[in-house]
Amino acid sequence: MKIAIAGAGAMGSRFGVMLHRTGTDVVLIDQWDQHIHNIQEKGLKVTENNTDTYYQIPIMKPQEVKQNFDVVILFTKTMQLDAMLQSIQHIINENTLVVTLLNGLGNLETMEKYMNKRNIIAGVTLWSSELHGPGHVELTGSGSLDLQLLQPDLHDTFEAFINALNKAQLHAKESSDVVMSIWKKAGFNCVLNTYCTILNCNVGQFGATKNAMILTSKVLDEFVAVAHAEGIMIKKEEVEATVKKVFDPAMSGDHFPSMVQDIHKKRKTEIDYLNGAVARIAQKHQIPTPTCSLLTELIHALEDVVGAA
Amino acid sequence: MKIAIAGAGAMGSRFGVMLHRTGTDVVLIDQWDQHIHNIQEKGLKVTENNTDTYYQIPIMKPQEVKQNFDVVILFTKTMQLDAMLQSIQHIINENTLVVTLLNGLGNLETMEKYMNKRNIIAGVTLWSSELHGPGHVELTGSGSLDLQLLQPDLHDTFEAFINALNKAQLHAKESSDVVMSIWKKAGFNCVLNTYCTILNCNVGQFGATKNAMILTSKVLDEFVAVAHAEGIMIKKEEVEATVKKVFDPAMSGDHFPSMVQDIHKKRKTEIDYLNGAVARIAQKHQIPTPTCSLLTELIHALEDVVGAA
Repeated sequence: MKIAIAGAGAMGSRFGVMLHRTGTDVVLIDQWDQHIHNIQEKGLKVTENNTDTYYQIPIMKPQEVKQNFDVVILFTKTMQLDAMLQSIQHIINENTLVVTLLNGLGNLETMEKYMNKRNIIAGVTLWSSELHGPGHVELTGSGSLDLQLLQPDLHDTFEAFINALNKAQLHAKESSDVVMSIWKKAGFNCVLNTYCTILNCNVGQFGATKNAMILTSKVLDEFVAVAHAEGIMIKKEEVEATVKKVFDPAMSGDHFPSMVQDIHKKRKTEIDYLNGAVARIAQKHQIPTPTCSLLTELIHALEDVVGAA
Repeated sequence: MKIAIAGAGAMGSRFGVMLHRTGTDVVLIDQWDQHIHNIQEKGLKVTENNTDTYYQIPIMKPQEVKQNFDVVILFTKTMQLDAMLQSIQHIINENTLVVTLLNGLGNLETMEKYMNKRNIIAGVTLWSSELHGPGHVELTGSGSLDLQLLQPDLHDTFEAFINALNKAQLHAKESSDVVMSIWKKAGFNCVLNTYCTILNCNVGQFGATKNAMILTSKVLDEFVAVAHAEGIMIKKEEVEATVKKVFDPAMSGDHFPSMVQDIHKKRKTEIDYLNGAVARIAQKHQIPTPTCSLLTELIHALEDVVGAA
């Protein structure tokens, strides 16, 4: 089994080394010159249990990749997904499986611009990883991943891929719930990430405002209408319940969602893959989404105000 | 001419003393015990050109006022207007003129709960004033005020009132544009006050965001629809132009609107008299205002997050 990892950051490097050292043929694809240079010169430095090991794993830029692969795992940032897919188009053929493990909405739509549905695996993962610098990754903790093949045609390759992941101790399993999970998580984030960012507060503080449930409901009404139009039969009450649950300070109420941290660190947020994606997908179905549209524009204005790059 | 000033804070005290010392019969009405006590004991302390003078002006609580007045000038904070009117109901009869100089929308509607349209004078003023503590006001600068009698019935009293104001050097003039001015100023504030508060920025920073005109337009579309339904034939382009003008850093672009300062100082904002009033008045006319509603709920949530009281 030949696997390409497109985007060899923290997570891509982790998956790369775990697959590589259990005998899978792995190639890393990245754009970062210093990272590529270090790995090509000395190997990928992997810190694990306070020990450093160097692994000789091939790494190259998208345009340098000539071979074909059974599976391509996408590990870019959400906003780099489209550009990466464009630059690796030439290595995706009708029998290649392409895996996304990205959060947010719209990533499957982006993939379908470059391949057929039969080539797509949707995934969610609990693995995490840390990149200490170019060519140096640290592996801590454990995780798992759920994968859903959108159409059954390439099921043999899919099974072989799951076996390779499990041989590498990556704890993969087939699931029919992944797309639903992605939407549920997105609905949750469309509420909490977005409002906490605009109000510059943590989840518990948002939950304690008198308007928390009115504001939550406004987003979820639009979100659910769009999900249903897309054939994802998500229940508003269920997402609402997961939101309400974390308002309790004992239940991660003191957590600042990632977009709040993005704004504090003057980084662009992923709003276009949350409320922005809801508004975008809604247009196809002619569903009005005044709340998600306004929130998206406000977050982009906030990015401009803090000078996010 | 007998004039009551309902709300004897900075502005009420200024108008009170200027009318009193030019021979008008003035009574101050207020709820603040220490303020009333100091004025009753020693007179109202007025600092002007580095000189302190004490003026013996009657001051009392609403329920203590027994006489009738030709004119009542309302100088409460916007959120206290309704309560003040309720407590001075007994001094307003069919021949009393009642003046509002408050910014924001909905104040005329509040007044109409307690009197007929023929009793109402709408006003805008450029006077300002500063209260240094209970019983002590400082007069600096100059100003003027425009007044519009909503219906002609009590025009004689209205003229006598304007004469009294001008005798007191308050520079008053009759105008037929006051209600339009109030709406124009409110439209301007519905955009700049509200967005700058949500984005925690000054006017120039908001103006420099890529979405500034999209966000402006969303508010003004709703605002203008509601104004037209109320018979105020305001032009969107005109309000938009006044907004755009102040985006220039040379034109008060570094100004933090009052609601931004309210949030910084953990005070309740006047959102219910801006976007909140637009949404409220819209209901009467069945005009949808998703933008103004959401912005109002967000500002109230922000008040909760900072613990505004």
